[in-house]
Amino acid sequence: MAATVLPLRPRSSEPSLAPMLALTATAMNSVNAVILERMQSEIPLIPALAGHLIAGGGKRMRPMLTLAGAALCDYQGARHHKLAAAVEFIHTATLLHDDVVDGSDLRRGKAAANIVFGNPATVLVGDFLFSRAFELMVEDGSLKVLRILSHASAVIAEGEVDQLTAQRQVETSEERYLAIIGAKTAALFAAACRIAAVVAERSDAEERALDEYGRNLGIAFQLVDDAIDYDSSSAEMGKGKGDDFREGKMTLPVILAYARGTPEEREFWREAVAGFANSDDDLAEAVQLINRHDAVDATRERARHFAHRAIDAIAAFPAGEARSAMIEAAEFAVARRY
Amino acid sequence: MAATVLPLRPRSSEPSLAPMLALTATAMNSVNAVILERMQSEIPLIPALAGHLIAGGGKRMRPMLTLAGAALCDYQGARHHKLAAAVEFIHTATLLHDDVVDGSDLRRGKAAANIVFGNPATVLVGDFLFSRAFELMVEDGSLKVLRILSHASAVIAEGEVDQLTAQRQVETSEERYLAIIGAKTAALFAAACRIAAVVAERSDAEERALDEYGRNLGIAFQLVDDAIDYDSSSAEMGKGKGDDFREGKMTLPVILAYARGTPEEREFWREAVAGFANSDDDLAEAVQLINRHDAVDATRERARHFAHRAIDAIAAFPAGEARSAMIEAAEFAVARRY
Repeated sequence: MAATVLPLRPRSSEPSLAPMLALTATAMNSVNAVILERMQSEIPLIPALAGHLIAGGGKRMRPMLTLAGAALCDYQGARHHKLAAAVEFIHTATLLHDDVVDGSDLRRGKAAANIVFGNPATVLVGDFLFSRAFELMVEDGSLKVLRILSHASAVIAEGEVDQLTAQRQVETSEERYLAIIGAKTAALFAAACRIAAVVAERSDAEERALDEYGRNLGIAFQLVDDAIDYDSSSAEMGKGKGDDFREGKMTLPVILAYARGTPEEREFWREAVAGFANSDDDLAEAVQLINRHDAVDATRERARHFAHRAIDAIAAFPAGEARSAMIEAAEFAVARRY
Repeated sequence: MAATVLPLRPRSSEPSLAPMLALTATAMNSVNAVILERMQSEIPLIPALAGHLIAGGGKRMRPMLTLAGAALCDYQGARHHKLAAAVEFIHTATLLHDDVVDGSDLRRGKAAANIVFGNPATVLVGDFLFSRAFELMVEDGSLKVLRILSHASAVIAEGEVDQLTAQRQVETSEERYLAIIGAKTAALFAAACRIAAVVAERSDAEERALDEYGRNLGIAFQLVDDAIDYDSSSAEMGKGKGDDFREGKMTLPVILAYARGTPEEREFWREAVAGFANSDDDLAEAVQLINRHDAVDATRERARHFAHRAIDAIAAFPAGEARSAMIEAAEFAVARRY
């Protein structure tokens, strides 16, 4: 929070989340206390199921962004603790519903909630956490924050439905894909950052700047997630490798490999995306085609573009620990291999 | 809305919803316009799926209660139109998720959304409608209304999870069952009524009175729904007869038949509720046992108790068209056969 100017890390070292984790560590303890307290219920299955996912790790990326944004705005109060918890609850609710929607087996390296507790409980505990998120926002009392997060929630759901509609559609364009991840992922990143400016009572321009930082960072994160699904091992990812492939999800590596492919390769993709060819051998073939056309690298290149936009969006804020940490988080988002 | 005192209908005629429908007809047109407008999205699957359920009938009971409550409070504004639509969206979202949770085949006499559109889209469109409900409330701008409905939503989800936990548990008590339906059904009835007093800026006592009317009415409605599942035909109900039986749901008719049963009958119920005996023959046997112990009549008798409490809760409001319609709605709730 101090206005001391820290040097940017020399480019030779790997960017990391460590500065942002350090920036937000104390406040995150308060957020975690709110999360633990407010996921309780007299119905024991609720904290059991919610805790399975919430205690099961995860980077707490979205609440961390609210905290970092508050630090950037030099906010001295404590309102953002509850709101960051609300953001994490919304995210957790969507993860629970996603796991049901995708029929996931793994989440964050362990059995997904739907596998352990079944689809019905997973859907309903998602609903509970979503409602709790709104209760937390109402307690805070800012209609502006409520507007931002209720709108983001509607946009997320639209993005998820849109993704479902695009599933197994080999002709999905890069534009459409960017619209989908802009909704299903980046909207909450944007809102998480924006509400920090709201509680700090900053100007509309600063609100928009934080929104743009979060939105572009969210797109970068999702692009790299999608790239990783075709270039690293399951153990590193905490989720089954090739899940996107088997589910017929048109992510950017596939969109680019298809666009750059020969007629024969396109035929392979049509079969694979339609679900007629998704064995382990087919996955190996898909990875080979994606490599042949540098589609993972191209996806990472696209991600770098959005990370740069995120970094530039907060250029007008004073240099300091918070801004440096947020810049490095954007660099980390695109450099990470897991 | 006029203060003219209408005579109570003579007890010899069947109570009906007609007076409440007449009382709220004009305002309901406005509510329906909001519902139709706000279930739209650029993602075509969203209005298609939402419309399947929303246009598919249903009594609009909950938004009607908001409108009736507003009439009772002599409210002259239009804020309650958006809020009643929000209430219906919350209800629709829970129905969509219920159908996924229960694996329902039918809803309101036609194929359930999950059957037509699949579980994934049904879960996600539920999430969308839920978010839209909060957007509508935020537009209205009352933190008090937001507090009431976000809390009700959390309680509903808790009730649904609790019901899931009680499923196939033959030892479920009447107390536990009342707690479940108080949460999963009556909480939204109560909130729908209560917010009418809030927009009309009535006293806390009047808010509580409308809350109690709605809560007791909701319990009465659910009790009669549960009774009907064991005493009328599928065509009349708009949902597969015996669904509760096959799903091993411990509703009051079963709880009472089990409590009043012989040791042999209890053995039958244990097998049936555990899911080992739920053929059509078993259903016929269940209905026979429920009849032998007057468990449907007893359930209806319990419903009458709550309907009377609902009626007494609004005794302090001035006599008139609104109060008469609300009284008759409570009488209808327990007299109906479908």
